[in-house]
Amino acid sequence: MQIRNPRTGLYDYTINIPSANEIKDLCNDLKVNQSSWSKQTIEYRINILQLWKQEVSNFKQELIAALANDTGRINETILEVDLVATSIDRWCSIVKEFFKEEAIKQSSIPFIQLQQQVVAIGLVGVVSPWNFPLLLSLIDTIPALLSGCAVIVKPSEITPRFIDVIKKTIIAVPQLQQVFAYVQGEGSVGEAIVNNTDLVCFTGSTSTGKKVYDAASKNMIPVFLELGGKDAAIVCNGADIQRAAASILWGSTVNAGQSCLSIERVYVQQTIYKQFLDAIVTLAKRVELNNEDISKGQIGPIIFEKQATIINAQLQDAIENGAVIDFGNASCSEINGGFYCKPTIVTNVNHSMKLLQEETFGPIIPIMPFNTIDEGIALANDSIYGLSGAVFAETNEQAIEIANHLIDGAISINDCALTAIMHEGEKNSFKLSGIGGTRMGPNAIKRFMKQRVLIINNNLQTNSPWWFK
Amino acid sequence: MQIRNPRTGLYDYTINIPSANEIKDLCNDLKVNQSSWSKQTIEYRINILQLWKQEVSNFKQELIAALANDTGRINETILEVDLVATSIDRWCSIVKEFFKEEAIKQSSIPFIQLQQQVVAIGLVGVVSPWNFPLLLSLIDTIPALLSGCAVIVKPSEITPRFIDVIKKTIIAVPQLQQVFAYVQGEGSVGEAIVNNTDLVCFTGSTSTGKKVYDAASKNMIPVFLELGGKDAAIVCNGADIQRAAASILWGSTVNAGQSCLSIERVYVQQTIYKQFLDAIVTLAKRVELNNEDISKGQIGPIIFEKQATIINAQLQDAIENGAVIDFGNASCSEINGGFYCKPTIVTNVNHSMKLLQEETFGPIIPIMPFNTIDEGIALANDSIYGLSGAVFAETNEQAIEIANHLIDGAISINDCALTAIMHEGEKNSFKLSGIGGTRMGPNAIKRFMKQRVLIINNNLQTNSPWWFK
Repeated sequence: MQIRNPRTGLYDYTINIPSANEIKDLCNDLKVNQSSWSKQTIEYRINILQLWKQEVSNFKQELIAALANDTGRINETILEVDLVATSIDRWCSIVKEFFKEEAIKQSSIPFIQLQQQVVAIGLVGVVSPWNFPLLLSLIDTIPALLSGCAVIVKPSEITPRFIDVIKKTIIAVPQLQQVFAYVQGEGSVGEAIVNNTDLVCFTGSTSTGKKVYDAASKNMIPVFLELGGKDAAIVCNGADIQRAAASILWGSTVNAGQSCLSIERVYVQQTIYKQFLDAIVTLAKRVELNNEDISKGQIGPIIFEKQATIINAQLQDAIENGAVIDFGNASCSEINGGFYCKPTIVTNVNHSMKLLQEETFGPIIPIMPFNTIDEGIALANDSIYGLSGAVFAETNEQAIEIANHLIDGAISINDCALTAIMHEGEKNSFKLSGIGGTRMGPNAIKRFMKQRVLIINNNLQTNSPWWFK
Repeated sequence: MQIRNPRTGLYDYTINIPSANEIKDLCNDLKVNQSSWSKQTIEYRINILQLWKQEVSNFKQELIAALANDTGRINETILEVDLVATSIDRWCSIVKEFFKEEAIKQSSIPFIQLQQQVVAIGLVGVVSPWNFPLLLSLIDTIPALLSGCAVIVKPSEITPRFIDVIKKTIIAVPQLQQVFAYVQGEGSVGEAIVNNTDLVCFTGSTSTGKKVYDAASKNMIPVFLELGGKDAAIVCNGADIQRAAASILWGSTVNAGQSCLSIERVYVQQTIYKQFLDAIVTLAKRVELNNEDISKGQIGPIIFEKQATIINAQLQDAIENGAVIDFGNASCSEINGGFYCKPTIVTNVNHSMKLLQEETFGPIIPIMPFNTIDEGIALANDSIYGLSGAVFAETNEQAIEIANHLIDGAISINDCALTAIMHEGEKNSFKLSGIGGTRMGPNAIKRFMKQRVLIINNNLQTNSPWWFK
């Protein structure tokens, strides 16, 4: 399969797609090895992950180069690679408490004692997207490995170049290689993974997520799905307008808007609407594309060609229905084979437009005024998605009062997209944004473990004396 | 639809099956009412549940009479009705801690604070089975209501007589009636419930559970599935043989074996095999059917006619392959229109027989000898199910050492089926026995709540300063 380069449009890379049987064989090997991996102490697994962290560091430049080719951008790429070590260290410091042997405890029935245990769920399949290819292939993988699971990862076929490098880092730690595999491939490989694992973690679009869920149900395995979003920011009278404008500009255009937690709708109270619009347009003018030099500017190419088509179609639909482009262009520009999009500020929009309904995944900022706070809340909640959101108000207290009414898993207060830097809170996805336990917070590791309880009857008699009464 | 009476075989009761549109309308009403129910304080909801507990008590005799007609047995029926009050009181005492307002807490990033919140998931659909019609229609319903969810319950169409009585108890508490409905019906009603709720809790067979999971995946809603089991008991050299025999006899034949946590396979160490067999046969002779007088004896009729056919087929398959009936008959007996089965002890069995592979749901006790402990463990784990199990050994420590190797959610130590009386431990279902969070233990209520986190940036700057560096 030929792979397109997002900066040149050339098909300059080839992947070999394993067959369903090859995936099955690999999964069977991983399952066999998982059994002894899970029987090791948590300290052993922490040590192995630390060894691997060192190998990722050893291959850092090669990894950055491959990922930059995959994604056409460098700033977010460096961040992605640096976050591997951060994430490993964070999980290694958290995970021990989940593996303390639980004491035998007295229950409320005098003669009955309980002992709780945890058991690693087995082989975890991770199917990850192209927008943060490394980061999102590891966000569930690291806690899964530490919990005693084996993991097979299939990153998106749109961004497969980093896989060969990450494989080198894994081969360098033989104990890890036994239970951790990356594979290249497209939908067929994802399907084979769902058919041969004990839990599947999928990050990606809601439409593909539905297919994954359907396949998981046929295999009677649980899923974790982190899907689309259409995050709203609410800006109220009294908010720091400059702060809101800078934060929302960043939150909606970082990684060229190709992020599930990207701000894709902005609702501004009428009294400050004009001021806010002026402020964000002024700031947007300072944002540069990176098309001439990958190391300059803030915005890289749209990674996936079809995504540019979606962005263009949403903009066209909005314009045909009366929307006005206050800054930016009416469509992505093709420059030397890549598709680029400046921060694009769109007003005179409404909820009948696709741009306000469907996930855009581009640096497009539709802005709508509202009058009362209740109207702002109703607009923000008028979505099939419920991933995250943001509220700007004069005080934190006022912002929290509004946030309490939003149907989303995480809400940033007087900032945007704080889940990008803060993973300590626990959040579920609401509505069509996902299924399953929290991915963030220490308890996220519980997704990879089953609970078992031993129930001890210390009575001289059994549970059954009434039987022969 | 005509309903069969398990004691007479007569079709003496009629249910009217609501249409899919009627279910949809009912669900929409419940969803509207759920919103204000979830906004009430937890103390309010506790008070309403306590009022309802009183109404269940007021209708106790009528409820017992209807359930006895549904199931053909009285001892377990009285237990089912009594457990409603026990369960309400237990949940009311547990639930408050989940609704304390969480303080705003400092995160590891100096300028970021977090506030955790919980949000009721919405409308919960409960689809429950015929073996404990009242108990299993409420096991998830009570915590769901307390968590702020609305609930629609469809008990099995095999045992629908108690529904009209339970409806009277609900109508007597108007605030509860707004958010709590029981409906009669078969598969079509279950399907309509999955299509119109935010979470479905299903207890029943693995084959129907697969259909529920498939339908839930198409609706992109989470599921809780508690499915079949093929619980094994292991009896080791040194165990108290009388104790093991009495407990296993009870655990495999209570409610005529129609229980998910019923012992359906017994593995006894060779050295004590003969003694154990003699002990359990001796005890089994004391067990009486209730066919002449519902208030006498220990074993009622097989509730569901088709289940008697399954039991007969499994016994026949075993006998054709060399099994020996040490006590009991080679098939269920038809007595005055009902199907009855004495404790049936079967030896000379092996794992090629359906009787050792498939859920039996009858008072059948296949017993196999084993030599080493490892062999016993391997036999117990050789099943597509992993619900629960039991181990008998000389000491608790020895039994726990064996239990640590069993792939089941709950293991009774020196007793059987302790999850019947002890719900304080947390357990997941393993293999094909289920999907979803623990049904037992205080955290079971978390299945009905989503987590939300507010992330507060108290810095003078936003998350985005590097953007314009």
